[in-house]
This record gives sequence, C-alpha cells and structure tokens, in this order.
Amino acid sequence: MTAFMDRLVARIRAVRNPVMVGLDPRLDSLPDPLGNVNPADRAAVADRYAQFCCGVIDAVANLVAIVKPQAAFFEQLGPPGMSALQRTVAYAQDRNLLVVIDAKRNDIGTTAQAYADAFLGRASAWGGDALTVSPYLGDDSLEPFVQVAAKRDAGIFVLVKTSNPGGKLLQDIVVDGQPLYARVGTFVEGLAKASRGDCGYGIAGAVVGATYPHELKELRALMPSTFFLVPGFGAQGGTAKDCAAAFDEHGLGAVINNSRGIIFAHSQPAYAQKFGAARWQDAVAAATRDMIDKLRAETTVGRL
Amino acid sequence: MTAFMDRLVARIRAVRNPVMVGLDPRLDSLPDPLGNVNPADRAAVADRYAQFCCGVIDAVANLVAIVKPQAAFFEQLGPPGMSALQRTVAYAQDRNLLVVIDAKRNDIGTTAQAYADAFLGRASAWGGDALTVSPYLGDDSLEPFVQVAAKRDAGIFVLVKTSNPGGKLLQDIVVDGQPLYARVGTFVEGLAKASRGDCGYGIAGAVVGATYPHELKELRALMPSTFFLVPGFGAQGGTAKDCAAAFDEHGLGAVINNSRGIIFAHSQPAYAQKFGAARWQDAVAAATRDMIDKLRAETTVGRL
Repeated sequence: MTAFMDRLVARIRAVRNPVMVGLDPRLDSLPDPLGNVNPADRAAVADRYAQFCCGVIDAVANLVAIVKPQAAFFEQLGPPGMSALQRTVAYAQDRNLLVVIDAKRNDIGTTAQAYADAFLGRASAWGGDALTVSPYLGDDSLEPFVQVAAKRDAGIFVLVKTSNPGGKLLQDIVVDGQPLYARVGTFVEGLAKASRGDCGYGIAGAVVGATYPHELKELRALMPSTFFLVPGFGAQGGTAKDCAAAFDEHGLGAVINNSRGIIFAHSQPAYAQKFGAARWQDAVAAATRDMIDKLRAETTVGRL
Repeated sequence: MTAFMDRLVARIRAVRNPVMVGLDPRLDSLPDPLGNVNPADRAAVADRYAQFCCGVIDAVANLVAIVKPQAAFFEQLGPPGMSALQRTVAYAQDRNLLVVIDAKRNDIGTTAQAYADAFLGRASAWGGDALTVSPYLGDDSLEPFVQVAAKRDAGIFVLVKTSNPGGKLLQDIVVDGQPLYARVGTFVEGLAKASRGDCGYGIAGAVVGATYPHELKELRALMPSTFFLVPGFGAQGGTAKDCAAAFDEHGLGAVINNSRGIIFAHSQPAYAQKFGAARWQDAVAAATRDMIDKLRAETTVGRL
C-alpha cells in the first residue's frame, strides 16, 4: 500500500480536481421514489440511504477522487444505519474512490486507540481510508490516531477552524497574540511534518472551513505539510474564490467538500428543470462538473 | 417523564451513592470463559461483549444508579458491535439503571441535531438517557443537543476538563487570566442554569476529571447548576478524597465513574484471591461496594 495522502494526491492528479462529495443522506431530501418509505421503519430507511449513496457514488466515481460519508445520519438509524454506512464505504472503494469517514471522534488513551482501530484502514471494521478527529482532548488523544494511521496507510483530519459561526467561541480566542485555531494548527502541522509522504503532506490533515477565507490563507502559510479538508462550499456560503488560498501552487494541498449542493442537486431549480426527478443521478454528475469547473477557473486547480 | 437530572438525583438518593459503572469491554480483559473467542470473529466478540456487559449490569443493578457504556469499544467491532451496544443499553434500562452513552459526539447545525436525535431519549435509535459531547465546535454545535434533550427528558455532559495529561494542550491555556476550561465551564453553566430542573441542576452537565482536584473545586464553585460526570477514579489515579470537591453539601452534584477498577475486578489480586475467575460478578459487586464505602467515608456522599 501507499501512504494515504500520497494515494489522495495521485487520485486528485488522475481526475484533475479536488472535489470531495459529502454523503449526508436525509430522508426528506431523497429523490422519489427513494424517499417514499415509512420514516419510523429504521431498517427500511437505512436501506434507502445505502441505495441513495451507492447511486451518488455511481454518478461521481469517474469524476472525483474522494467521498465523505457523514456518520451522524447513519447513526440516527441505529444498527441498520451502521450497516448502511459500511455498505456505502465498501461500495465507494470498489469504485476506486477514497473514503473519509466524517465522525469527529476522539477520546483518551486506549479508547482513542479503539476508535482509531475501528475506523482507520480498509481491513478495519468500518474500513475508512481516513477519519475526522476532534482536538479538545489534546495531544495524547491525537497521537494514537496518527500511530494507527501510519501502520495502516490511513489518514486523519483534525478539526482546526470549522465552517460554522459558533466555532469562534473557542477557536477564535486570542492567546499571546495568536488565535486558538492557529495553536491547534501548529500542533497538527508538527504531526504532519513528522509523517510526510512522497507528496510532501503528512498523515495528519486539518479541517479548515471555506467560510473563513482569511483564516484559510493564514493557516495554509502556517501549515505547509498539512493537507486540508475544506467544508463549507456551496450551501454554507463558501465560493471557489474563497477556497483559492487552500491550495499550493500545483493545485494540491486541499480537498473541497460539497454535500447538499451535489447530492441533492435534483431539487435545485436549475438542475430540476434540466433533468427532472427521475434523472437525479444526472443532476448529481452535472453539479459535480459545475463545481469542478468553478474551482479550475478560480484557483490553482486549473494547473492540475 | 421527568427531567434527566431529576431522575438521576432520585436514583442516587435511592441507592445512596453516586457511583457510575463504566462499561468498557476489552477482549483481552474478559473473564474466562467469556474471553475464549476468536478475536477475528467480530460478531462472536460482540456477542461476548454484550454477555459481559449484561453480567456486569446484573451484578451492580441493585447497588448503583447509572452506567456508562463506552461507544469506542463497540464501534471497534463494526455493525455487530453496535447491536451489542444497543442490547447493553436496553438491558441496563430494564434493570432500572440510567444510561449515559460515552460517545463524545459533536458536529455543526443539522448534523449535531442528527447525533442528538440518534442518542438522546429512550425511544431514539440508541436509547441513551444522556450522551457525552465535545465542545470544540462551539455554541451552535451544543445548542441542538440541549434542545433535543429538553424535548426527550434526556441530558448531555460536555467535556470541560478531561482526566488525561494531554488535555492541558488546549484546556489549560490561560486567556485573560482564566483557563480555557473555565471559559467552556462558564458557557456550559449558562446552558445548565437556563434548563434547571426541580433538583437545581440543568440539562447540560460537564465532564471534569478526578485527576485534577484543584480544577474540580474551582469548577464546582463556578458551575452551581451543572451536574458533573467525573472520570479518572481508580486506574487513572483519582481517589475518593480527590472527588470530594465535586459534590454539593447534600452529597449531590456529581457521579463518579469507574470502569476498569470495577468491571475487571476479577483480575485484581485482592478480588481474584477471594472470588476466583468463576465468581467474577461477585468481584464486580465487591469492588463497587468498596468504592461506595470510600466515597461515603471521604465526601459529603455520606449524608445521602
């Protein structure tokens, strides 16, 4: 196997874009007839979630490098939801996509190790290529993830500057002239630098929101060995221009996530008119292509 | 139904102690013959985890008010592990125990709502009476949990000052003369105060480690409406005396968690000698009684 970030860079180069498709299934947004199911029947809903996510994967597998299932929506359905998550991860990998499980896990010591063991590596129970991780518990909670990831050629993305307004409560606190997110970023950069692969990026990546382009630029300069997972494009207000600072001069160094704006494109007027509900997968592919075009026009991604 | 903290206080008064039993199953620590299973067979291991946890529950159901399954160990096993977690939660509640699911979840906006919906309330997919939650994502990530908890008479415990040494990386940063954990504590206290039940404690509780007795005392004074979940007793080094500051004058205001020190008591020399491996449940009950005695001797718990 090859280190996760090296595999990611190779796949991004192959598809010539850094779009990450977020798999956030919600029952009330599913296209007909997938959405026609009794909401109280969790097993039936879970089955529809898996069908929908596999349908999205079919639509984007030849267009993008990576997908990001959001664990919360699967967990909402209990054990059948977790089986649907597992099915979704495996299906994406069969289609040659990398998979970041967005679960924002963390705990201390051997419990952190149990989460790392659960989520990281294709032979693990959930089989993720990478996992999002929360930093509040500190350095000894992050290190087990890096260690397990190193053994399994997997990666992590640590929350640094999140895309939501409330993130500022802690993240923007200024300590010794430096915001807290920069301090977390510096720590993550240390982990990344110590584990750099051939591509120049290390095992530990960072989550940095597109909704804060100034901070994105600041963190890109501060964290040259750290690959970014950038949420907040589209529905949350982030634009292609806002994402420009996330990339290095070669158009690498970041994946830009879009969930609702791609997977539920069938309900956006422009795509709905063109494709109708029945061709929802064509709407997904069209929205993905449109996002790729925007990023290629406004950022160094055009150099890929 | 009754608000979670009111139910918790009523149960603590009924059993006259605040011991919380942490259900952290680990294959290599299970008593024989439960531990004799192929580690690669996740479904078989998950079944043993459920059997073991139900056995612990049988041993402590008449002694304590509350248990805390640790999600990580169940997640390690994939979907069968998650079914074992669900079985464990339901079994504990059948035995009249309250259940905090220790999953340290969080995310933004509607995703936070999905986690809250998943874990909070006995009719939810996982059926927790309460859930542990991480604060790094800020206020708008915590509020959905409080709102869902209010509707379902459930509770949350937000990480404030954790029991591990590495917690200091962020939590001990001093801002305007105040450590970050106190700032998080002040925010949680605001949520708790706004949602106080008959017992005087609100929907939002806090996780504060027994390993930092000075900070525990400081936070108790700062957070009078906030119920504490105190980890770190026993294996991590916290003593009954260290926990004293967590309680109010009536012996209320905190639950003290013990995982390994109780559930794996059969492997501690003192209990092993007395009970042998076969009577591991008697060792669990004896270790629980010993912890209760220590807390009653060293803290206001003796007044319950």
